[in-house]
Amino acid sequence: MSGPLAGLRVLDLSSVVVGPVCTGVLAEQGAEVIKLESPDGDLLRKLGGKGRTPGMAGKFLNFNRGKRSICLDLKHPRAKAVLARIAARCDILVTNIRPDAQKRLGVDAATMAEKLPRLIHCSIVGFRTDGPYAGKPAYDTVIQGVSGIAGCFEASTGEPRYVPMLVADHVCGLIAAQQIGFALYRREKTGRGESLEIPMFENMAAFVLQEHLGPMSFRPALGPPGDQRVLSPEARPLKTADGFIAVSANTDAQAHGFFRAIGRPELIEDPRFANVAARTAHTRDYFALRATALVGRTTAEWLELFTRHDVPAMPYNTIESLLTDPHLRATGMVREEEHPTEGATFAIGAPNILSGGMAPTLPAAQRLGAAGPDLLAEAGLSAQEITDLARDGALIQPEETT
Amino acid sequence: MSGPLAGLRVLDLSSVVVGPVCTGVLAEQGAEVIKLESPDGDLLRKLGGKGRTPGMAGKFLNFNRGKRSICLDLKHPRAKAVLARIAARCDILVTNIRPDAQKRLGVDAATMAEKLPRLIHCSIVGFRTDGPYAGKPAYDTVIQGVSGIAGCFEASTGEPRYVPMLVADHVCGLIAAQQIGFALYRREKTGRGESLEIPMFENMAAFVLQEHLGPMSFRPALGPPGDQRVLSPEARPLKTADGFIAVSANTDAQAHGFFRAIGRPELIEDPRFANVAARTAHTRDYFALRATALVGRTTAEWLELFTRHDVPAMPYNTIESLLTDPHLRATGMVREEEHPTEGATFAIGAPNILSGGMAPTLPAAQRLGAAGPDLLAEAGLSAQEITDLARDGALIQPEETT
Repeated sequence: MSGPLAGLRVLDLSSVVVGPVCTGVLAEQGAEVIKLESPDGDLLRKLGGKGRTPGMAGKFLNFNRGKRSICLDLKHPRAKAVLARIAARCDILVTNIRPDAQKRLGVDAATMAEKLPRLIHCSIVGFRTDGPYAGKPAYDTVIQGVSGIAGCFEASTGEPRYVPMLVADHVCGLIAAQQIGFALYRREKTGRGESLEIPMFENMAAFVLQEHLGPMSFRPALGPPGDQRVLSPEARPLKTADGFIAVSANTDAQAHGFFRAIGRPELIEDPRFANVAARTAHTRDYFALRATALVGRTTAEWLELFTRHDVPAMPYNTIESLLTDPHLRATGMVREEEHPTEGATFAIGAPNILSGGMAPTLPAAQRLGAAGPDLLAEAGLSAQEITDLARDGALIQPEETT
Repeated sequence: MSGPLAGLRVLDLSSVVVGPVCTGVLAEQGAEVIKLESPDGDLLRKLGGKGRTPGMAGKFLNFNRGKRSICLDLKHPRAKAVLARIAARCDILVTNIRPDAQKRLGVDAATMAEKLPRLIHCSIVGFRTDGPYAGKPAYDTVIQGVSGIAGCFEASTGEPRYVPMLVADHVCGLIAAQQIGFALYRREKTGRGESLEIPMFENMAAFVLQEHLGPMSFRPALGPPGDQRVLSPEARPLKTADGFIAVSANTDAQAHGFFRAIGRPELIEDPRFANVAARTAHTRDYFALRATALVGRTTAEWLELFTRHDVPAMPYNTIESLLTDPHLRATGMVREEEHPTEGATFAIGAPNILSGGMAPTLPAAQRLGAAGPDLLAEAGLSAQEITDLARDGALIQPEETT
């Protein structure tokens, strides 16, 4: 069995999160991903928190499974020719290098398209190059601030805040992989590659506007923006006697089940809560009631009661408790794995099931430059050429890196 | 010019957010999307906030651009045969109907594959069907609670909270479209369709774990989980004299530029802040310093200063202010549009640029059942058959809906 992208080769000129998420998805679907790194390596190797050996931070491991690392010093005059030879063998190039730096390296879409008309060139940028913010530097938090994500928190709790994840990077990396899939499909029809520009700001602004423009979609506005149910400051897991629980009770049947489960069936007749329209008009009261309703029993007791009353509810997980979640363990989404160079680790599995075949379990993330000599040999370089490149400092091998 | 999915037809048996996001992406890329609705219509038509006419809430409009609506009463004995005729013309079927209900309707993957071997069947579920949570009801907040998204907030501020967007629904809809693209590519190679299972829990748990497992990726753990910089409770837009600003100053050059811009160059030599390692060890101090550093000048003044000192910074946008953002207006991401039935509206554009051609601007979201008779005629039904179906209540036409 193999994944849908088996047989495709990806040149990954990206680092940190947005690009590596994209190429991680492509690897998960069976593509061969060649991760080209500078002598410093992907910044996440060091910035990704503690590791057992230098350059192998936990966060780096989890975003770079299934990729082959080659380390080239592109400042070296002979390294650019090597890059060109590798690129010539690839179907897809993914980069989050800024457009002007892409040009200096000769890996911009126009330059590549001349030599490689079948290449799909995916450039992830902060801002679309056809608007006034073109070329502005983009980092996840800057994008969260300018795209309205932090603004959703202000609309909810009164205080702008970032989602405590690199959500703009992560989502845009998923979107880049998505758009590459569509371009691959088109290439089968036309025989031609193309270039894709994936702008983080536009994608995240569209995300926020679709969610929350609401009554302001009309001119003049029919009311303030925002889905008030989603923006309620009480939209959070509910406190139980021994922790928290995630409950959703939005339809009438669910809300009525909730009232029965908490031993207050009289609320079914309460005009504030009797139906969806009433509860929407009294969101604050309804959420406030829910916030304190569950402190008298344990999470396990509530889960049983809610199951009995057909109220959707699940245990609340912390980051830690995901590791022992019975469903994630049973499906292999969280598994224990011996990393070839880093020892005992947890590995995160592939979430989606494709009946047409899935890629085998991906090998673990590599140390900087680990696949360099192999990749050059596969690209047709002789053993002598590879030795020379290493001696001249154009190719950096893992023994030399820290 | 046309999008990469031009010529493909999608049967959309989904509602609310996760499925409509998926089929919205497919429409944006040029596919014809047939949105089949029950007589009540997609729940979001009513639950999506205020609209000018019943069933046309703002939120519904923004998730359903470019789709053709047909309204069938599938409880009617003749409606199922009509559904089968429409499905037979489609390349892709997307549904978030629960697996057991799919079987009752005869639209589950196994049943469809027998008749339509080239169909790509995409079933979006809460939990993978090969684990103990299979079949549990899934709603966005329940998924946010069980997948650790709310847990990230606890790790940050001490209080579990949901992202004030339907982020699990929205992200999994994007992923569903991504996986469909890969299956389309494979179908070109093999000639065969396949079935996809897109589980929300697994996808969001993987999202959280990749971001934050960090030092707990190792066994035994090298430390508590979480990227502490991202989890800092001070990770938020900074207050200025007249609002907020989004600033990122993580590299040494950026941090030093920040210190110069705020008129405190002596901090460059401060051992707590001199380099990345020092600032990571003193994240709390560094973020606290930043939190109050900008209250003396306006956002516009800071943007100019930060540009001069090469510090990445952008204006902070609320949901409202996105509508007047100069870049979004210039790129057509936000534009004014006369909706054919709902009057003056704002429309949200397509973010990504594909050099191989993009779909024309999508038509606006339709009223319930608006394209029903046309779609049936295209499926080969005679005018008499369509009239009969309408008379018998199997086909609901827009005049009859509210």
